[in-house]
Amino acid sequence: MTTALCDRLGVQLPIIQAPMAGSQGSALAIAVSNAGGVGSLPCALLDLDALRRELAAIRSGTAKPYNVNVFCHVPPTGDDARERAWREALAPYYREYGIDVSAIPSGPGRHPFSFESAEVMEEFKPPIVSFHFGLPSSDLLRRVRRWGAVVLSSATTVDEARWLEAHGVDVVIAQGLEAGGHRGHFLSDDLTLQMGTVSLVRQIVQAVRVPVVAAGGVADASGVKAMIVLGAAGVQVGTAYLLCPEATTSPVHRQAIAAAAAPGATSHTALTNLFTGRPARGAVNRIMREQGPMNPIAPPFPLASAAVLPLRVAAEAAGRPDFSPLWAGQNASACREIPAAELTRVLALGAA
Amino acid sequence: MTTALCDRLGVQLPIIQAPMAGSQGSALAIAVSNAGGVGSLPCALLDLDALRRELAAIRSGTAKPYNVNVFCHVPPTGDDARERAWREALAPYYREYGIDVSAIPSGPGRHPFSFESAEVMEEFKPPIVSFHFGLPSSDLLRRVRRWGAVVLSSATTVDEARWLEAHGVDVVIAQGLEAGGHRGHFLSDDLTLQMGTVSLVRQIVQAVRVPVVAAGGVADASGVKAMIVLGAAGVQVGTAYLLCPEATTSPVHRQAIAAAAAPGATSHTALTNLFTGRPARGAVNRIMREQGPMNPIAPPFPLASAAVLPLRVAAEAAGRPDFSPLWAGQNASACREIPAAELTRVLALGAA
Repeated sequence: MTTALCDRLGVQLPIIQAPMAGSQGSALAIAVSNAGGVGSLPCALLDLDALRRELAAIRSGTAKPYNVNVFCHVPPTGDDARERAWREALAPYYREYGIDVSAIPSGPGRHPFSFESAEVMEEFKPPIVSFHFGLPSSDLLRRVRRWGAVVLSSATTVDEARWLEAHGVDVVIAQGLEAGGHRGHFLSDDLTLQMGTVSLVRQIVQAVRVPVVAAGGVADASGVKAMIVLGAAGVQVGTAYLLCPEATTSPVHRQAIAAAAAPGATSHTALTNLFTGRPARGAVNRIMREQGPMNPIAPPFPLASAAVLPLRVAAEAAGRPDFSPLWAGQNASACREIPAAELTRVLALGAA
Repeated sequence: MTTALCDRLGVQLPIIQAPMAGSQGSALAIAVSNAGGVGSLPCALLDLDALRRELAAIRSGTAKPYNVNVFCHVPPTGDDARERAWREALAPYYREYGIDVSAIPSGPGRHPFSFESAEVMEEFKPPIVSFHFGLPSSDLLRRVRRWGAVVLSSATTVDEARWLEAHGVDVVIAQGLEAGGHRGHFLSDDLTLQMGTVSLVRQIVQAVRVPVVAAGGVADASGVKAMIVLGAAGVQVGTAYLLCPEATTSPVHRQAIAAAAAPGATSHTALTNLFTGRPARGAVNRIMREQGPMNPIAPPFPLASAAVLPLRVAAEAAGRPDFSPLWAGQNASACREIPAAELTRVLALGAA
């Protein structure tokens, strides 16, 4: 099974480095792809120029297959009342940091996959494209297929896996509830439907015929091997790469991950919608403790982020992680400051 | 590692049948123990006479080691206002079923481990005792140790595993969030601290020296093998046993499990405090949908159960699962109507 997946993706190792928008760019992707795994470029935070630059960097950095990851949410229409309520909830923090509320722009902050971004991508024809939050319109999907890309997307339930297979994805990523970052659900936002990695992977493997990549809580070779035992064809690993020198993980984020990974430490993550409006898993920090990690006031994805951003910038300047999304999965135990190539090879021992 | 665990427990197979109060008694425990695994007798719903009868049945049914499972919660003091609010929330259902609210008794419904129950147990000296919700008083624990029992308890976080080891348990059960029935947390009731099985097992295995038994989402031989790959010494499996003929699973509960296990089916479980006051995982049914699975009005464990019981009885008499706790883990895919001995042997193939 791992061989079938590697053949399909054109790589040596069934290890996908999870796309982590905000914490990495082309450098990490290049290192992982050159090591024989699948390096991923997260595109949600890139404008068209940055996208072109990053793709050009990858093309000059590696001749091996790589993955480009895009979000395919439908941008919501803004709701002034909700935006006001959200800023009111954050008002004490603005005062604390002397931030002028009226100067804070509102707006998306995360770009969905579009014809414009497909246009830029087609110049490079990335051999693998992974989607988060379902799939784009069939026009856009056809376009991606036309340049020959292998198509992946995340499922957080068995129903989503079946849906993705029915809509023609080549590989399903089973994203267990333990995974860091944004949950990929798209058929329902009822979080009780989502499952831990063991339950999800085992049931998806039995429900679909396409290869299944396991994600969530996989941090070392034993985790990789366990997933393959459950029937997965490969794994997607994110958190373990956050301390690699090739990642662009911010200092406060690195500190949070290193603390969680220290021997004898206790890591505490939670799903939170405070940073973007959509549930995502990150290390618990001040805003999550004080506002509750899941708060109905936060505007819908991705609108919540605009009002938090200036707080994040101000706090980080003071060395504080209080308002930053510290994306991390539930198992940070294997995070080390080692080169991404080495981590990729260590993980792959579990698939040997 | 599996050998060390089996030696410690005195059994052939590193498979513990999870104690499931309300869905099984001595018959299931006997079948599993005779098959070489660890059969478990759940005691939380047994009064002293029933406890003695069940223990006598096990002694006459098997000469092999078995496990006796007890809850060790501190019974809360009743709160009349909260009980009233709870009954008010349920009032529409009482009317629907023509139930006389004033005739419903209040009170616990689940017994914690006590000197009286220890007294009865000591007549039989069960070779294995597992605790849920931490550990009992040191007096009581000493008493259990005096008759030579191996002591197990559940951890839902790495901190709880460390605490249990420091307090002398012989084996830690890592209860992943995917497991059915009551969550075993005892150091904190913040559910965001609890982890999926992969993350929990991997981190607990690295944090303690005692053998670790993995629980939550393990339903078949591949699940068993995956847990052993992660470093577990054995597994505890509950849901998969619910359809065995030796279980006393109620008809509505059997139906819910069979539906979740059917090919192409979608199972939906959630943590709920509606049935006892403490978060426990079960298949979603009417009361969970209508009252919200986690409802702050429900009185503290185990007081919530008294007011729901008459509804459960009335609905079940009409063949409806609407008010019954349908305890189940997130992976019911392997549930079959097969004898418990056969299931135990199939699971053990993963540890061979």
